[in-house]
Amino acid sequence: MTDALPSYDELPVRDGAPPKSSWGLWGDHDVFGTLNLLTPELVRAGAAAVSTGKVYSLGIPIQSTGVPLMDYRGTPLRLTLMNESDDGRFSVYGAHDGTGAHEDVLVFASHTTSHMDALCHVYEEHHHYNGVAAAEMKTNTGAARLGIEKVGAFAGRGVMLDLPKLKGGDWLDPGYVITADDLDAAQEAQGLSVQEGDLVLLRTGYLDFWFAKAADIPFEQPGIGFEAARWLADRDVVAIGADNAAVEVIPFDENDFLGVHKELLVRRGIYMLEFLNLAELAADQCYTGLLSVGPLKVTGATGSPINPIFVG
Amino acid sequence: MTDALPSYDELPVRDGAPPKSSWGLWGDHDVFGTLNLLTPELVRAGAAAVSTGKVYSLGIPIQSTGVPLMDYRGTPLRLTLMNESDDGRFSVYGAHDGTGAHEDVLVFASHTTSHMDALCHVYEEHHHYNGVAAAEMKTNTGAARLGIEKVGAFAGRGVMLDLPKLKGGDWLDPGYVITADDLDAAQEAQGLSVQEGDLVLLRTGYLDFWFAKAADIPFEQPGIGFEAARWLADRDVVAIGADNAAVEVIPFDENDFLGVHKELLVRRGIYMLEFLNLAELAADQCYTGLLSVGPLKVTGATGSPINPIFVG
Amino acid sequence: MTDALPSYDELPVRDGAPPKSSWGLWGDHDVFGTLNLLTPELVRAGAAAVSTGKVYSLGIPIQSTGVPLMDYRGTPLRLTLMNESDDGRFSVYGAHDGTGAHEDVLVFASHTTSHMDALCHVYEEHHHYNGVAAAEMKTNTGAARLGIEKVGAFAGRGVMLDLPKLKGGDWLDPGYVITADDLDAAQEAQGLSVQEGDLVLLRTGYLDFWFAKAADIPFEQPGIGFEAARWLADRDVVAIGADNAAVEVIPFDENDFLGVHKELLVRRGIYMLEFLNLAELAADQCYTGLLSVGPLKVTGATGSPINPIFVG
Amino acid sequence: MTDALPSYDELPVRDGAPPKSSWGLWGDHDVFGTLNLLTPELVRAGAAAVSTGKVYSLGIPIQSTGVPLMDYRGTPLRLTLMNESDDGRFSVYGAHDGTGAHEDVLVFASHTTSHMDALCHVYEEHHHYNGVAAAEMKTNTGAARLGIEKVGAFAGRGVMLDLPKLKGGDWLDPGYVITADDLDAAQEAQGLSVQEGDLVLLRTGYLDFWFAKAADIPFEQPGIGFEAARWLADRDVVAIGADNAAVEVIPFDENDFLGVHKELLVRRGIYMLEFLNLAELAADQCYTGLLSVGPLKVTGATGSPINPIFVG
Repeated sequence: MTDALPSYDELPVRDGAPPKSSWGLWGDHDVFGTLNLLTPELVRAGAAAVSTGKVYSLGIPIQSTGVPLMDYRGTPLRLTLMNESDDGRFSVYGAHDGTGAHEDVLVFASHTTSHMDALCHVYEEHHHYNGVAAAEMKTNTGAARLGIEKVGAFAGRGVMLDLPKLKGGDWLDPGYVITADDLDAAQEAQGLSVQEGDLVLLRTGYLDFWFAKAADIPFEQPGIGFEAARWLADRDVVAIGADNAAVEVIPFDENDFLGVHKELLVRRGIYMLEFLNLAELAADQCYTGLLSVGPLKVTGATGSPINPIFVG
Repeated sequence: MTDALPSYDELPVRDGAPPKSSWGLWGDHDVFGTLNLLTPELVRAGAAAVSTGKVYSLGIPIQSTGVPLMDYRGTPLRLTLMNESDDGRFSVYGAHDGTGAHEDVLVFASHTTSHMDALCHVYEEHHHYNGVAAAEMKTNTGAARLGIEKVGAFAGRGVMLDLPKLKGGDWLDPGYVITADDLDAAQEAQGLSVQEGDLVLLRTGYLDFWFAKAADIPFEQPGIGFEAARWLADRDVVAIGADNAAVEVIPFDENDFLGVHKELLVRRGIYMLEFLNLAELAADQCYTGLLSVGPLKVTGATGSPINPIFVG
Repeated sequence: MTDALPSYDELPVRDGAPPKSSWGLWGDHDVFGTLNLLTPELVRAGAAAVSTGKVYSLGIPIQSTGVPLMDYRGTPLRLTLMNESDDGRFSVYGAHDGTGAHEDVLVFASHTTSHMDALCHVYEEHHHYNGVAAAEMKTNTGAARLGIEKVGAFAGRGVMLDLPKLKGGDWLDPGYVITADDLDAAQEAQGLSVQEGDLVLLRTGYLDFWFAKAADIPFEQPGIGFEAARWLADRDVVAIGADNAAVEVIPFDENDFLGVHKELLVRRGIYMLEFLNLAELAADQCYTGLLSVGPLKVTGATGSPINPIFVG
Repeated sequence: MTDALPSYDELPVRDGAPPKSSWGLWGDHDVFGTLNLLTPELVRAGAAAVSTGKVYSLGIPIQSTGVPLMDYRGTPLRLTLMNESDDGRFSVYGAHDGTGAHEDVLVFASHTTSHMDALCHVYEEHHHYNGVAAAEMKTNTGAARLGIEKVGAFAGRGVMLDLPKLKGGDWLDPGYVITADDLDAAQEAQGLSVQEGDLVLLRTGYLDFWFAKAADIPFEQPGIGFEAARWLADRDVVAIGADNAAVEVIPFDENDFLGVHKELLVRRGIYMLEFLNLAELAADQCYTGLLSVGPLKVTGATGSPINPIFVG
């Protein structure tokens, strides 16, 4: 853990690193990125932000249909490994008649529905955060240094900015690019300000739009572009979550494929959480609290489905 | 949410329910079990238990080797869906050379390494918690009413009882049955007491034993039997986690297959969390804090791998 | 192996068996169905039917897109287990630089694209072929007696009837019910007749239709109804393959869900092979030859993807 | 299809190709290897080799236990997708009570138990057969040119050489290297000779040894080394199958990791089939017949489980 980042204008600190990158800031071999910012003091401040004690689950369901999925990732499957039809299976262990255990096997992409990107998820010019070569992602063994298991678990102050509320609709239009002015205005309207170490949640309304329309949804999505990404990065946030597929706007800002991922995840080591359910927080106008995130520690994986816990 | 359970002696409240069961207590159609006990007041009390602000990840890694696994559940697999070898895949979307995304597909049992049991996991006399028929677990669609997605996410005061510390060793012996006296003594030694609504963590040292010995580990494990289960249930705890395979002792107490699961999960609706990493809490002598748990919301599933977040 | 079936009018031979069923004909515990008909003599006759020596692969590809798939079965996945990115993995075994092995893991339904139904696939009044209870299909262990592994491998005379050629089009209309007259006429037009022990292939043109139209294909398919099913069963054929999803017409004949499967697979123990590529046989007007089928011997499975070998 | 290979001494025909390689022989872009040798005449000769008409299944079961498996490939899983517990699922389609379909999902490595290697399986000096770069095996899309689907299906004269019978035991010793003299002697003892275009089966007895000993099997296996590999290659065989893990001896001949795969698969384009059940052929002293092989046409895959059909 460490002092805050130098201001955005002072980056990068390492020769040869991309513009505005934090590479080297926490050591040449750092694998944690902005988690370095999350000091115990900030975690305690997050716990102190709890007011109502109401608990929100920010994950949406994992199932084969009825949720936004990407075809190339395959169908999420929950397959029953064992159920009552197998009764008798445990009688050798002295199981009483009618006693047994139900179990299943799960098959799904690590980036299914609500998920978190590991720092090894996106690469730019063949490199991940902190200059780790993309080629370190081995097919068999996965990511050697930036796998999702490195994240462990984290908690901090969660701050939700509700853009549709600001704009006066149920959701932002597909393809709408959230601006820095939007973020300023949302802060002001909600009476709060994003602070160093925050876990920021951006509500675009996209999931509400998806569930309302389900069929025939365009691929375009509202989200942030470079301007808002820099606004957030400059405030030294640790993670950015949103209720859309990629945090960033689609089509990509400046037509730069995964441009915001490159700006945040690759250059700054800022974590990104996608397809979060922010509707209940919005309904309750609950904007700050303690946000806890525990991705599955799948060794070498590029991300994990998550179900973050927000205590309002 | 509701008043506390009646005392153990007053249960059951529903005719025909098993002895000491809470069936019907929170309604004939309740699917939440002891989560009903977790009032916002108790959640706030959990947040108030945060002192150091240090964050502990209670999940152990999910990988094919080097962690305790059960053969019948199959090998956990992380398979790369896409990596740099596929460079060029996104050029049709205007991706710059050298920019791309790494992704994987995961295959594992819902009860792999650190996990949480849904209320549909174990059944006794063909019934789950609250009298739900085991036959409701359909092979194709899973659990109709008691799937893990019903849990949502929860947080509360976490309390860890360190039994090996009490007994003066690195771990309890394989097959050791933790007694009510042990729990009383651990409370006293650690200067705390288990309260209604607590999320109790029982450290047996089994995982330390496993990692120390790895090969040639006996199947026997230390854990709780009926006596300690009732001690805990009578204190109206919401969930019980442990660093062993089943919370309960193996061989099963009184040779009753999954007897403690029946006592806690089936009859009382108390959640069980297994294979948790409690070693770091023990090393820090960190015994209370806020524990947040967000199982993956896999619709109809019998459990989920978890990575609980403990803020000390 | 055994004598031929009694004529259709003499069935069933077992009290309580469904009408026209062969249950008990090859013993009360028979698990092979019409494979009992396939005597070495008939196999030799099949080999003698080879004329050109041209080999046809009747399987269509297994892939995630571009082939007919059913959503509820999930996306077929070929996931790379190991490739050149893992170079060095085998250096501990003395592998030379640049030497290695590529491998993959496959995830797909047993009934994906070209496949064969095991006798445990369909049940009627809770029973499979020969009166085996449907409840014998255990979730964990699969089919106890009628799994696909019981098929082993088989070969015999393959006979292809080309219905679109008879009718003068590229394919039969969606929903067209092939009649007994059609089969008679196809036999006559092609100068052959279906014999006892034959492996009959019915070309409907559906796959050609699918590949030609790909998007926006109706679910309706041409196929056989009860009349043609009985025509075939009465000739004591061993297996019936087709280039559609279910051999039988969809919507089902007489609106009887899986009615022809019940008639053939359940009552008579006649094997069914689906989504076979018959286009090349049709193009070559190759109607008889030796057909060899080796389903994967997945213990307890309800079917298997296949790639039958037809030697013309 | 084409003329036979030049004699072994005349290879390679392409500049820069490895010693004795057939690269370029069937065109610079050939993806079929020795399948080019399998002319319709040879296929007809294979069919003419049928004598008894008895059909042998050369696949061993695919299951989680009780068969030889490699840990790194994960546990083969057959998971029930749907069974009678889901009764009612099809009532919307008018299914009668008690009528339904059992289905499963399969998860296993392409090289599980009895399997066939695609030409993209092994590489030497970063290249596969015919100089195809190993880097063409993309993680997401698999092999671009040498995937198993290119094989289609094939049939030809099968010839089995029974080495344990020659040597007078139930199986060859672990690590025994089959010599050219052994192959000569086996031919003579069995009264046959390997011909151009043959599909040769080598019985080592390893599977019998494995099933007899099951637990505590050494990794060492009998098989062929370079000498016998060249003996076979020089006879222009199309494929070589064996009842062991790798056709070749383990430890590898001359300590050259996958040396025989490099010699046969990579340099000559000769197909290799592993873990075949040859015990029944041996018991019947059935040494020649028609062998038909139809690997699953999984697009881009490095191999496929198979269940070859041998008609004696």
